Amino acid sequence: MNLTYPRRQKQLQSLLQKLGLPEKVPVQWHLLDLALTHPTFSAEANYEQLEFVGDAVVRLAAAEFLWETYPDCSVGEFSGIRAELVSDRILAQIADSYGLEAYLLLDRSAAGDIAGRETRLADALEAVLGALYLSTHTLELVLPWLATHFKQLAAEIRSDPARRNYKAALQELTQSAYKVLPEYEVKEMKPIRGNLQMFTAVVKVLGQTWGTGKGGSKKAAEQAAAKVAFEQSKVKMSNE
Amino acid sequence: MNLTYPRRQKQLQSLLQKLGLPEKVPVQWHLLDLALTHPTFSAEANYEQLEFVGDAVVRLAAAEFLWETYPDCSVGEFSGIRAELVSDRILAQIADSYGLEAYLLLDRSAAGDIAGRETRLADALEAVLGALYLSTHTLELVLPWLATHFKQLAAEIRSDPARRNYKAALQELTQSAYKVLPEYEVKEMKPIRGNLQMFTAVVKVLGQTWGTGKGGSKKAAEQAAAKVAFEQSKVKMSNE
Repeated sequence: MNLTYPRRQKQLQSLLQKLGLPEKVPVQWHLLDLALTHPTFSAEANYEQLEFVGDAVVRLAAAEFLWETYPDCSVGEFSGIRAELVSDRILAQIADSYGLEAYLLLDRSAAGDIAGRETRLADALEAVLGALYLSTHTLELVLPWLATHFKQLAAEIRSDPARRNYKAALQELTQSAYKVLPEYEVKEMKPIRGNLQMFTAVVKVLGQTWGTGKGGSKKAAEQAAAKVAFEQSKVKMSNE
Repeated sequence: MNLTYPRRQKQLQSLLQKLGLPEKVPVQWHLLDLALTHPTFSAEANYEQLEFVGDAVVRLAAAEFLWETYPDCSVGEFSGIRAELVSDRILAQIADSYGLEAYLLLDRSAAGDIAGRETRLADALEAVLGALYLSTHTLELVLPWLATHFKQLAAEIRSDPARRNYKAALQELTQSAYKVLPEYEVKEMKPIRGNLQMFTAVVKVLGQTWGTGKGGSKKAAEQAAAKVAFEQSKVKMSNE
């Protein structure tokens, strides 16, 4: 099916070329058009459903990539690395490297929403990958394309745990192992000197304390607690 | 690659037949063997990694099934139905209908763990589907097989919202829309008469109260609050 807007189709063709995908990709143009239409541009026909499919495509591609690349990694490590690979930050970074924003139809009000830019780009990339998957019903196009990006990123994440989003990693881990979410309790500490705000966080899993941490914000304290919990989780899980 | 244990391979062949999969499936027998090996049977070579891949396979298959079957559903409905379709309860039910337990190698201690049975069966089924996916690198086998099960289940879930796990559905929704998790605050109510324990739960998303609920257990109160929040979420999200 061709689009009724020849200019849009030309634009989308140039995007596929930019992405380095084979010219003869049997893409369904109306899906690709939908994938690059923000809900503010059309409340009825936009990328939301494709993003739902694309999110699952990216997660399976990341799982398969990790399985192939790191056969000796534990499932905990898989979870931690994947949480980072499929994060908005990484996906938006990939989207940005291809200038995806220029292809996204959106309302002027949304275009000015700087804070939402990262999520918007990540969502649109997921939707594009969802459209490519649904056009072919295989991961043959999407997986090698994502793998070229994941390869270096995964190596960086493995060698530098500080890059990790420990809250996301811990959540993946406890959901996969126990089907529960970690619970955080954060308290503001009394300032010891000066006006520095400090917080302490305790993270519990199934009612048991797994880690504690401090930080200059609620979020930083939670990340610190999650890091302790994540790193000790292997010990905990093997003791059970 | 053939297994070095001819008896096990015969057993696995009979399982594929039982599942109704084509006889000429190019299955990697050592993966299928791994998929049906519980961590208590072998700490080194078991189904954990395959379950990680299989979980993503099932989620993508469910997403594609919903996309194809209910093109007019909102993403919120997709999330809610999928949360139920990929739940341990449903997956264990499917596994049970094929007597999957008989094929699972596990330590006697684990076999006696009745409380863990549902999770064990769901995990093993995910791992089997992961092994089938990795044997072929397509969803061609797995998707139609799952779709036959999902078809009736999804129709039942849609027609009977009481079947839904609202906490899971709400979580899927807020993660997909805002990349955050719902937060629950539960308090025990003072007994009004008799000794009936009652709890109230408040569920908040991004600091805002989305719903409240009561119940005879902490979990029931949370589910009640999640139901209110989930059902009102569409209204909330369209007002933003």
